Amino acid sequence: MRWKLTIEYDGRAYAGWQRQKHQISVQEVVETALFGFCQQKITLHVAGRTDAGVHASGQVAHFDLDYGRPLDGFDLAKALNAHLRSETVSVIEAVPVPDTFSARYDALNKLYTYRILNRSAPPALEQGRLWHVRQPLNVDAMREASPVLLGKHDFSTFRAAECQAKSPIRTLDRLEVERIPYDRAGGIELRIHAEARSFLHHQVRNIVGSLVLVGKGRWSAQDLKAALDARDRTKGGPTCPSDGLSLVRIDYPVG
Amino acid sequence: MRWKLTIEYDGRAYAGWQRQKHQISVQEVVETALFGFCQQKITLHVAGRTDAGVHASGQVAHFDLDYGRPLDGFDLAKALNAHLRSETVSVIEAVPVPDTFSARYDALNKLYTYRILNRSAPPALEQGRLWHVRQPLNVDAMREASPVLLGKHDFSTFRAAECQAKSPIRTLDRLEVERIPYDRAGGIELRIHAEARSFLHHQVRNIVGSLVLVGKGRWSAQDLKAALDARDRTKGGPTCPSDGLSLVRIDYPVG
Repeated sequence: MRWKLTIEYDGRAYAGWQRQKHQISVQEVVETALFGFCQQKITLHVAGRTDAGVHASGQVAHFDLDYGRPLDGFDLAKALNAHLRSETVSVIEAVPVPDTFSARYDALNKLYTYRILNRSAPPALEQGRLWHVRQPLNVDAMREASPVLLGKHDFSTFRAAECQAKSPIRTLDRLEVERIPYDRAGGIELRIHAEARSFLHHQVRNIVGSLVLVGKGRWSAQDLKAALDARDRTKGGPTCPSDGLSLVRIDYPVG
Repeated sequence: MRWKLTIEYDGRAYAGWQRQKHQISVQEVVETALFGFCQQKITLHVAGRTDAGVHASGQVAHFDLDYGRPLDGFDLAKALNAHLRSETVSVIEAVPVPDTFSARYDALNKLYTYRILNRSAPPALEQGRLWHVRQPLNVDAMREASPVLLGKHDFSTFRAAECQAKSPIRTLDRLEVERIPYDRAGGIELRIHAEARSFLHHQVRNIVGSLVLVGKGRWSAQDLKAALDARDRTKGGPTCPSDGLSLVRIDYPVG
């Protein structure tokens, strides 16, 4: 029986999704919970490997389990959460899927959201959950520039050196800057929503780093276009911190 | 010169607002930051003393400072935040106010918001920031019952034994249950907004505890009314945890 898990986690305590030799990963923690539940060594296959410190409200992974007797998704999630009690990881849904389902290869679309707190005062309530940018950002300029990156491009400028993807070509379907009042003293939160079928390593954080240069008035939309066209990481803006990034949603044809 | 501070804090690390002998309070932490800034022992006068574990996005306090030279509110907040760097407390605004201003006595209205995560899976992203209720709550029933508590009443049923207020009479101006989708797997967040000029000790948490009994189908709106009319704490619902409670906003005629 193949199962699809939807997983929420606070990335701060983990060295990213993928199992590591000397650090705790989200994968290890969930696989340990699975072992605690059924005493079987099970390997999880994930949709998107998130980096250290990156959060998820809708990560997806699949695995195969020969449980021997009928098993309900609600009960499975509940049992796993009982084993995850001391972690900041929670299984929010477990559903049976066809044996051909792949969390990684069947993903039609992924939504990442990057949160920026734009005010002078540092965050007290959501430390580690957003990136604190003191200098007021010009949201209109960021909104005007972002369509430059939409569509199918060679995203080498926004790709980490250690990226293992074969091709730097990706199709960015959505890049939107949402502006939300954060507090009663004029503080602003920006939520930058990026959607694509798949992303390069650090692609969202590098794009946000560049958009913030636009927001600070240091780059124009044309500078952003020139950076993209350069296909050269050294021409891109800085990689922004993991704190603000969350894998929010993954769409599948089924499940 | 009298100053009004607007303060944001994560209550988890503190034994509440008020200075304690053997535990760290928010008051002590901000007064220590003030001392670090101006080397003067300054006492803060707060609008609402929050309990241990209760958060604030808009707490207000005032203090008097003879600084000796001109001081700008933006710079004052920035300097205090530099001294608060290792805390989960942030001064989001500092403004000069008339010498007659009182954070406590001039408050026209306070808004507290209580957050409930209503789903089977425990929270991974916002542990300590909301109350996890597994059993599905009937939001419509909670909404229908809540007007019972609006207006001027003797709130003894919802008042902590250790409450120091002279009178149990309070006027509740708003009690609303907001329903927000929390995740992609059907999880729901409830935000219960309560507004009044002032509250009794534990009043919001005791009201929410009773509203949740309504949401679980154990109480009707009439039961809630009967509890209020009993003017007896033992007839009220349980006190819900501090995690979900936040002091969001305080309104003043000026400043």
